[in-house]
Amino acid sequence: MSNVSQKKAVILVSGGLDSATTLAIAKSQGYACYALSFDYGQRSLSEINAAKRVTAHFDVIEHKFINLDLRAIGGSALTDDGINVPTEGVAQDIPVTYVPARNTVFLSLALGWAEVLGATDIFIGVNAVDYSGYPDCRPDFIQAFTQLANVATKAGVEGQQFHIHTPLINLTKGQIIEQGLKLGMDYSLTVSCYQATDEGLACGICDSCRLRKQGFEQADIVDPTRYQM
Amino acid sequence: MSNVSQKKAVILVSGGLDSATTLAIAKSQGYACYALSFDYGQRSLSEINAAKRVTAHFDVIEHKFINLDLRAIGGSALTDDGINVPTEGVAQDIPVTYVPARNTVFLSLALGWAEVLGATDIFIGVNAVDYSGYPDCRPDFIQAFTQLANVATKAGVEGQQFHIHTPLINLTKGQIIEQGLKLGMDYSLTVSCYQATDEGLACGICDSCRLRKQGFEQADIVDPTRYQM
Repeated sequence: MSNVSQKKAVILVSGGLDSATTLAIAKSQGYACYALSFDYGQRSLSEINAAKRVTAHFDVIEHKFINLDLRAIGGSALTDDGINVPTEGVAQDIPVTYVPARNTVFLSLALGWAEVLGATDIFIGVNAVDYSGYPDCRPDFIQAFTQLANVATKAGVEGQQFHIHTPLINLTKGQIIEQGLKLGMDYSLTVSCYQATDEGLACGICDSCRLRKQGFEQADIVDPTRYQM
Repeated sequence: MSNVSQKKAVILVSGGLDSATTLAIAKSQGYACYALSFDYGQRSLSEINAAKRVTAHFDVIEHKFINLDLRAIGGSALTDDGINVPTEGVAQDIPVTYVPARNTVFLSLALGWAEVLGATDIFIGVNAVDYSGYPDCRPDFIQAFTQLANVATKAGVEGQQFHIHTPLINLTKGQIIEQGLKLGMDYSLTVSCYQATDEGLACGICDSCRLRKQGFEQADIVDPTRYQM
């Protein structure tokens, strides 16, 4: 339960492994946690169901869902059915699963909600080690967004400083899993797959599945993911 | 009509006087114009109808509407029915019509669409002269967003430079109106009022109405706005 002296934070929660661990970390740091998720036209409902399980597990103050159909923009395998999710292995280039400006959009809405709540702390589970090369997962992006937040808002203009927390940014997937387990995370609640079934069964071969699998191997932990095959 | 050599631009169009003039300017500069509007839970449908009239008037290539219910966040007289729109005159402080992070959210989605279109030009009708003191209408904000855009996107990482055009930022409301009229704008198509009726009748006393009225007086132009009283 929260108490009045607790600092509030907004945590972006997708239902995947990284954001679930980020929520666990925010909680362990004593924040009153306000979880924010998006229904953005993902390929699978399982992501949203996973987000609900994760926030229930950690007993957040509030879990808000915002409907924002990024399919209206398209341009990604995750938001356009005409573009296939790659399953051949993680490549060096920015892959077609990149959703244009996604983290900018998500952080903007987190910023808006934070300002309404009177919070200046926002947590996002970006990772620049075992990741898919998305530009909006890198420290440069987070730094630029922080600068923006402080000039974009009434709170910023009035002298408050926003802090975008990225506790996973320099961790390997294995280290992320180890840290989450120490904090009571149950990874069977999470779904990382880009094309999971609505029941939450993972494909095992998309980039996100491969990075997740590799993480459990790195951490030498039994992988609780339910695969389709 | 567009042709293949035209540069594409995304223009944020709300249906108000400023964004309509901004579209007129983008068009006059030879851009292939892609208009972007939001249904964000505004108090009145008239804003959306006005946006449709304005983009039809200027024959844009595409006019996209994104549903994004900012009422989920609230915190503003424009997105929370429990907060009244002030009608006592434009004050010095940032007013309760400020929508937390609104222009950050809108520009983020414009950025995403621009990237999908292969465009690097985005137009927004912010104004820092005859305005309501919103932090996300100032040059500092635009500069910070531009820096963000260039690190947040695949296009930016690949060396393209985004340009956020703010042709109105240093103009008075009167100058904006004069410029629009020269470019064929018909301001009777636009609705600026924060609490217009669904038929587009303006209240005449909210800050937005007051600034608009003052603009027509400055420009010595007959005000075509339809008022409720």
